Amino acid sequence: MTVDIADGVRPELDGTALLEQIEVLAGIGVDHSRPEAGRTRLALSDQDRLARDRLVSWMKELELEVRVDPMGNIFGILAGEDASCSNALMIGSHIDTVIEAGPLDGAYGVLSGLAVARTIRLAGLRPRRTLMVGAFTNEEGVRFHPDMMGSLFFAGGIGLEEARAARGTDGAALGDELRRIGYAGDADPAALRPAEYLELHVEQGPVLDSEGIDIGVVEDLQGISWKRIVIEGTANHAGTTPISMRHDAGFAAARGIVFLRELARDSGGTRTTVGTVFFSPGAINVIPSRAEFTVDMRDPDEDRLSRGEKGFMDFLDRLEGEEGVNVSVETLARFQPVRFDRGLADAIEAVAKGRGLSTLRMTSGAGHDAQMLARVCRTAMIFVPSREGVSHNPAEFTPSEQLVQGAKVLLDVALQRLGRS
Amino acid sequence: MTVDIADGVRPELDGTALLEQIEVLAGIGVDHSRPEAGRTRLALSDQDRLARDRLVSWMKELELEVRVDPMGNIFGILAGEDASCSNALMIGSHIDTVIEAGPLDGAYGVLSGLAVARTIRLAGLRPRRTLMVGAFTNEEGVRFHPDMMGSLFFAGGIGLEEARAARGTDGAALGDELRRIGYAGDADPAALRPAEYLELHVEQGPVLDSEGIDIGVVEDLQGISWKRIVIEGTANHAGTTPISMRHDAGFAAARGIVFLRELARDSGGTRTTVGTVFFSPGAINVIPSRAEFTVDMRDPDEDRLSRGEKGFMDFLDRLEGEEGVNVSVETLARFQPVRFDRGLADAIEAVAKGRGLSTLRMTSGAGHDAQMLARVCRTAMIFVPSREGVSHNPAEFTPSEQLVQGAKVLLDVALQRLGRS
Repeated sequence: MTVDIADGVRPELDGTALLEQIEVLAGIGVDHSRPEAGRTRLALSDQDRLARDRLVSWMKELELEVRVDPMGNIFGILAGEDASCSNALMIGSHIDTVIEAGPLDGAYGVLSGLAVARTIRLAGLRPRRTLMVGAFTNEEGVRFHPDMMGSLFFAGGIGLEEARAARGTDGAALGDELRRIGYAGDADPAALRPAEYLELHVEQGPVLDSEGIDIGVVEDLQGISWKRIVIEGTANHAGTTPISMRHDAGFAAARGIVFLRELARDSGGTRTTVGTVFFSPGAINVIPSRAEFTVDMRDPDEDRLSRGEKGFMDFLDRLEGEEGVNVSVETLARFQPVRFDRGLADAIEAVAKGRGLSTLRMTSGAGHDAQMLARVCRTAMIFVPSREGVSHNPAEFTPSEQLVQGAKVLLDVALQRLGRS
Repeated sequence: MTVDIADGVRPELDGTALLEQIEVLAGIGVDHSRPEAGRTRLALSDQDRLARDRLVSWMKELELEVRVDPMGNIFGILAGEDASCSNALMIGSHIDTVIEAGPLDGAYGVLSGLAVARTIRLAGLRPRRTLMVGAFTNEEGVRFHPDMMGSLFFAGGIGLEEARAARGTDGAALGDELRRIGYAGDADPAALRPAEYLELHVEQGPVLDSEGIDIGVVEDLQGISWKRIVIEGTANHAGTTPISMRHDAGFAAARGIVFLRELARDSGGTRTTVGTVFFSPGAINVIPSRAEFTVDMRDPDEDRLSRGEKGFMDFLDRLEGEEGVNVSVETLARFQPVRFDRGLADAIEAVAKGRGLSTLRMTSGAGHDAQMLARVCRTAMIFVPSREGVSHNPAEFTPSEQLVQGAKVLLDVALQRLGRS
């Protein structure tokens, strides 16, 4: 029996089953002698394999067809009346983690996809379009660089040979590790590309939590510019060198840090962060001869991000002259902003409001697999609050009712999209 | 035969002998497999003992009476018609060094004192007043804290038991090391205190060199305030945390560094330096939760130095409110400024001008034994240029003719003072 899910039928999601699966996955990678350290499931590690095996068994319980591509990306397919993947809706995220991670980042999105599939199975429905649940390899990028590698490969942004040759922080080749844990699949990723992609994620920022908003409708994802700045001045005696004769690399760096904040404040949307700084020689009574710091600059608007970069470079040119120092700049990473699909975002907002939830159109500050999928299909993201914005930390937390609420919004959007072909 | 040296007789100093002794002392403590590393004669080390033994032998060649006090301070005494130390002129400095030091810091002053004594001996003169040449223990303070310890003891600023109990960076007790190298003497320091003290030193700063001036007439010595500042904010995701919601300890520290420079610029004479800074957790994409930095603030004027400290504390109070951070301050060191004797400074200036040399009344930015001696007698210092202001570095350099020129000014002043009782 084929049912047009969007018309009238409204099955409800089993929140308890979702929370139980989150709990089970959160227990994989925990060192039980140090429970306060959270869990660690680095990509393609033994812990990642355990989590993958569990995910695949859950997919099979729901009678999804499991496919694995050559990068180890895992897909569970619930075929619709239209069985083609090219017209499918995919719900995905990742199950690898950072070191000493919280329970939600990534796992919440994948398991909510399973919860949607479960709801459809339990209701005995068959959607018009096909539903795919995806788990992408090495989103975190802690063991292997770059991050979001599985989804980048899936979207055609990196070749298989290059990706498999990546060396981990432990020296292992990614391809060897894929084979070792049994996840070097043979499914053709191009044949698995969906028409639409949704990703449900904890915000990892404080906005929804602090403003008491239920659902973030993510319209776009910031562009990122990472740079390392090295300033070379002249070391000298702090007591004997007049201020006017100094070439103080440390002071020049401090000016740079303050400038970046002013740039952010005046930009209308650029975020700038200096997270690391080093002075040499590093003595209380010696003027620094060398200062090094990193710049994290993000903006959802590419023009404004480029203007920010240019403004900072111009500042550094002036700084060289004004302080008598030498400045060098190295680009560490550069990604353009991603704009998500307006129609999908509107659908998410309408569904959430229909459930009486408060919403906020927002920008993702962090990178996600969705930004890679956006290269090949219509894409959007749904955020739920993160308590105090804490993430990449065992203390990462979202109340159960908010987790279930987010999954229900995802379900409604999915049913709506799946119903009409 | 007693001669009033000040009247008519003007013996000249043997520059070659002075430079040869500087050369010999500069060779003690050199690692000949790494000549580029300069020399290292940490206080009371074997290398310091070799230098002390050489100094004592040179004093005895000049028939000076050698006395060593319980802190290992060495005095060579050339008795005048008035043999009392309480009416004597002392010329002194130190022969210990920092790690990988230049050849001049300290040694130049002690050996110029010997050069003055040698001139008097070679001319067969007997001054009215007594001349003392002093070498103080542990001026540098690299192995044992505090620095200027020998002169501090000599001036009554620290007790013998406390000083001898000081532990070196290698764990050795200062008293044990004094005995080990044979320099725990028994002369009563109080009985050796002179009426006047002169110290000739390389500037260790760039002023004389860059302005082409021959002789610095040091009128005073800066007060020093050293503090450690710890700022505690909140770590968070660089991409997801809005600028307005940040409590960025690193940005707050950068504001502090910039404020200190502005304070110096607007003060009319305060020097501020931030030589060390640390951010935690120290990741490119994490807002720093903690920043630590040191402050070196100096001023020859105690009121202005206190105002600078107060101004910075007020700024830190405002910073706490404006950035939502917690700031704590620890005082690491605090010395009041020292004003040298006006009459001695005038005499130095007049003598230098009499030799056709250019002079500059100036402030010593660095600490010297003279600042301790100023507690107990009339004191002044003479500076010669340091090329590019480099010191505490093997590259420390002053041209030979400037070294001899400075010693000749010292000689003239000394003869003038010694001649009249």
